Amino acid sequence: MREALESDLRAVLNGALNMLGTVERMLPVAADILLHERTERLEEIRALDREVDAQEAQIEAECLRIIAIHQPVARDLRMVALILKSLSDIERMGDYTVHVAKDGAELAQAPALKRYVNLARMLERLGEMSHNLRTALADRDVTRAEATIGMDDEVDDLYEQIQRELVTYMLEDPRNISKALMLMRVGRSLERVGDHMENIAERVRYWVTGQREA
Amino acid sequence: MREALESDLRAVLNGALNMLGTVERMLPVAADILLHERTERLEEIRALDREVDAQEAQIEAECLRIIAIHQPVARDLRMVALILKSLSDIERMGDYTVHVAKDGAELAQAPALKRYVNLARMLERLGEMSHNLRTALADRDVTRAEATIGMDDEVDDLYEQIQRELVTYMLEDPRNISKALMLMRVGRSLERVGDHMENIAERVRYWVTGQREA
Repeated sequence: MREALESDLRAVLNGALNMLGTVERMLPVAADILLHERTERLEEIRALDREVDAQEAQIEAECLRIIAIHQPVARDLRMVALILKSLSDIERMGDYTVHVAKDGAELAQAPALKRYVNLARMLERLGEMSHNLRTALADRDVTRAEATIGMDDEVDDLYEQIQRELVTYMLEDPRNISKALMLMRVGRSLERVGDHMENIAERVRYWVTGQREA
Repeated sequence: MREALESDLRAVLNGALNMLGTVERMLPVAADILLHERTERLEEIRALDREVDAQEAQIEAECLRIIAIHQPVARDLRMVALILKSLSDIERMGDYTVHVAKDGAELAQAPALKRYVNLARMLERLGEMSHNLRTALADRDVTRAEATIGMDDEVDDLYEQIQRELVTYMLEDPRNISKALMLMRVGRSLERVGDHMENIAERVRYWVTGQREA
C-alpha cells in the first residue's frame, strides 16, 4: 500500500511539474509575440493553454482519487493539498501568459514605446523562476523554494520600474497614454505570474517543513 | 460515521461561509475609507484581514483532517476540494480589499477625481455578489452560483467603464495622471475580488452537478 501511494504521489507530482513546464514553454512564445511582433504564434500559445487546462482537470481528479483510496496523512497529505491548491495557481499563470500574448499582438501595430521598457528582462526572470520552482518541487528543496520567493522580489522591482517609466512617457506626450496603459497591463500580468509562483513556493516550504513561515 | 462526516463537513462549510462573511464586512469599510476619507478605519480593516488569514489556516487544517479521518468520496470529496481551493480565493479577496483601503487612504489627500468614477457602484455590487455567493454555497444552489457568475459580468463592465473614464481625465489634463493611475489600480483590485468570487461560484456548480461547464 505504501509503495502504491508513493507511486501515485510521484505521478501527480510529475503531472504538476509537467503542467508548470507547459506554462514555462508559453513564456518565450509570449515574449516572441510581444517583443518581436510574431503575432502568428498566438494560436500556438492558445493551444498550450488548452493543454494546461486539460492537465489541471486530470491532475485534480487524480489527487482526489489518491485521497479517497490511500487516505494519506501528515506530509503525504500536505503534498496532495499542495498540488490541489497549486493547480489553480498554475492555471492562472497560463491565463496571464495568454493575456500578455494577446496584448502583445495588439501592440504589434505600435511597437515603438515598448523598446524602452524592460519587459524582456521580466519575462526572462520569470522563466528562470519557473525553472527554479520546478526543481524545488521535484527535489522537495526548501532552499530553492526560498530562492524562488526571493526572485519574485526582483520581478516586483522590475514591475515598479516599468510602471514609473511608463508614467514618464505619458507625461511627456499624452499620445503615449493608451500604448503605455496597455504596456502597464502587460507588466501587471507578468507580475501576477510571479506572484502565483511565489504562492506555490510558499506551499513547498510548508509541505516540507510543516511550518507556515520561514 | 456518516453522521460524524456530515457534521464535520457542515463545520468546514460554515467556516468557509464565515470567512467569506468576514471579507464581506471588509468591503463597506474599504468603501468608507475610499469614498469618505475615513482613513482612521484602516486598522479596522487590517484586523479583519488578519482574522481572514487565521480562518484560512484553521479551515485548511480541518479539511485535511476530514479527508484523513473520513475518506470522503464523490460529492463529499468534491465539497472538501471546493473548500480547500476556495480558501485561497477568499484569502486573496481579503488582500485586495486591504489594497483598496490603503490606496483609498493615500487618495484621501486628493479626493476630487474619484467623485467622477463609479467605484461606489462597483463596491456595492461586490457586496451583493458576496451575499449571493454565500447563499449559493450554503444551499448548494446552482442557480444562485450561476447568478453570481452573471453578476461578475456587470462588475467587469463597470471596471471597463471606469478605465475609459480615467483615460479621458488623463488626456484632458496630464496632472491627473498619477491620481488616475491609482484609481485604476483600485478598480482593478475590485475587479479581481469579483473574479475570485466567480472562481468559487464555478466550483459550487462543479461540486453540486459534477459538471465543469454549464
